[in-house]
Amino acid sequence: MATAIQIPLQVRFGDIDAYGHVNNVVFLQYLEDARVQLTHTPLGDSAGPGTDATGTFQRLLDADTFTLVARHEIEYLHPIEFRPAPVFANIWVTRIGGSSFDFGCTVAERDGATVYAQASTAMVLVSRSTGRPVRLTDAQRHALATWLGDDVPFRRRPAAAAAVVPALEGVC
Amino acid sequence: MATAIQIPLQVRFGDIDAYGHVNNVVFLQYLEDARVQLTHTPLGDSAGPGTDATGTFQRLLDADTFTLVARHEIEYLHPIEFRPAPVFANIWVTRIGGSSFDFGCTVAERDGATVYAQASTAMVLVSRSTGRPVRLTDAQRHALATWLGDDVPFRRRPAAAAAVVPALEGVC
Amino acid sequence: MATAIQIPLQVRFGDIDAYGHVNNVVFLQYLEDARVQLTHTPLGDSAGPGTDATGTFQRLLDADTFTLVARHEIEYLHPIEFRPAPVFANIWVTRIGGSSFDFGCTVAERDGATVYAQASTAMVLVSRSTGRPVRLTDAQRHALATWLGDDVPFRRRPAAAAAVVPALEGVC
Amino acid sequence: MATAIQIPLQVRFGDIDAYGHVNNVVFLQYLEDARVQLTHTPLGDSAGPGTDATGTFQRLLDADTFTLVARHEIEYLHPIEFRPAPVFANIWVTRIGGSSFDFGCTVAERDGATVYAQASTAMVLVSRSTGRPVRLTDAQRHALATWLGDDVPFRRRPAAAAAVVPALEGVC
Repeated sequence: MATAIQIPLQVRFGDIDAYGHVNNVVFLQYLEDARVQLTHTPLGDSAGPGTDATGTFQRLLDADTFTLVARHEIEYLHPIEFRPAPVFANIWVTRIGGSSFDFGCTVAERDGATVYAQASTAMVLVSRSTGRPVRLTDAQRHALATWLGDDVPFRRRPAAAAAVVPALEGVC
Repeated sequence: MATAIQIPLQVRFGDIDAYGHVNNVVFLQYLEDARVQLTHTPLGDSAGPGTDATGTFQRLLDADTFTLVARHEIEYLHPIEFRPAPVFANIWVTRIGGSSFDFGCTVAERDGATVYAQASTAMVLVSRSTGRPVRLTDAQRHALATWLGDDVPFRRRPAAAAAVVPALEGVC
Repeated sequence: MATAIQIPLQVRFGDIDAYGHVNNVVFLQYLEDARVQLTHTPLGDSAGPGTDATGTFQRLLDADTFTLVARHEIEYLHPIEFRPAPVFANIWVTRIGGSSFDFGCTVAERDGATVYAQASTAMVLVSRSTGRPVRLTDAQRHALATWLGDDVPFRRRPAAAAAVVPALEGVC
Repeated sequence: MATAIQIPLQVRFGDIDAYGHVNNVVFLQYLEDARVQLTHTPLGDSAGPGTDATGTFQRLLDADTFTLVARHEIEYLHPIEFRPAPVFANIWVTRIGGSSFDFGCTVAERDGATVYAQASTAMVLVSRSTGRPVRLTDAQRHALATWLGDDVPFRRRPAAAAAVVPALEGVC
């Protein structure tokens, strides 16, 4: 996970549910904001040949293309109580396909001592005009490759899952 | 899926995101409300021997026990646009363990003609006082068994997953 | 308040905050959905001469025009606890200006026996292309007039407010 | 407004609605988090005689007392688009009563060059056991007094209407 980008996330009072913990639904909003912050951060070393390092992954998408969430898998490990201090998302890439890719993400303490949840999210590039998947460009693949890391170490996932070939490409 | 319970869900204007569709995060709130409505509905035929049919699954939990979401897996199939008419959740049980069980859920049109998303959610019964898993009682198992149905037919899930034994029990 | 339209609102589990009540923020979402449901309901008797009674207020807005919230005033009278049964919004119009109008709204039991909150919301019609206010058409004014009712009977509002002429018109 | 405390607020992608702007409802969540951050910040110079300066306003409330929102008034001046950078809340106190007080709040750029919304929120101290208002203690009053500032300069409020220069034109 050396490649993961770390993003602070403010916990809102409204994130807390009747049980006194951050609601399970809100964790998906944390994942979303980790993705959005990542794709709005200047590429820097993730910029490929001929790509503007001050640009962002978001700007590597042409106006007709947007990214869609195709699938989430999330495992809750510890509850989060309200705190004025932020929690941290660590986000990286676990798979790069033809027109799709997967993010791995943890919600954790800054030092990783406690991991509150871990998740995998499948993204697909889609054309606004045709509604069809769009192939990743070389510049996009280059950036994603610099963020590539290990699979999410799910604890409770059916054991054989790690060994099988991802099926997303054929579907999207 | 003959055993699924169908629950109408109002789409809120605030559910719609900048892309003009129900945000992917909100689907987890739909799942949550489907679970909550199910567990607050009078048991009726799901009441076991010696159980009050006018009671609810929620009331089968003693004061020290609550249910915790351990894991979600969700697959998005079609976007939902804003509509004043409700969408429908179909919710059933796909697995009953010692102190945990899984819900299957679809978000769909009333007649099932369009399925917008399908999901699997692992729940664990936990003791407030000890923080430890609590074994399902006979009355709880009886009710869950009346809602038992097929596995969620995920399209994009790693292929071998369906064949393996769920690992949640050993974890919780 | 004979003119108020009543709209059922599902309480979501996620509406409940750490205090065990519907969070104060969520009431504004209830108001929003009351407005949206009202403006998406067939006009019926609220349709003016030459207006399609099967159309909606929303359809009386041309493609370039949208409604913007300019101001809310809301008073909380009683907390709402989680309930599987809906609460009810009663919504009506309290003022019709040149390019703006005010909604009155209560969140209450169906029979009005308990009013949980009452609110006033100022709306402005705005042109997407110019960003400027747009004058209400005759058909829009006719529909709003059929929903016209009393001012919201705020309890805690600065005393002088009730006596003064609303100033929004001069502003918009 | 020299007494206002400034608090950064992360804009979440989910805050953006179908119109492409931070939804009007979400502004109330911004106000809530401004209040919560303020009341969880070490008192410092706001600590009165005999009060621990490393404590917070929240800790000045005994276990039986909590604060309840009684009323909001909010005026929207400019839309906020999605941005990875935070917006800022400025929060201060505008009134101190016997068992209640009012917060003033703006949502703005850090330098105040643009004010997106301004609001007034009435808070009441309530006893959990009796459900009745509780009088502010001397230590609480001392802290609130250090944050005391001007009334919120609402533009469209009825009470100040006669003097208000039409301002919405520049806004919409």
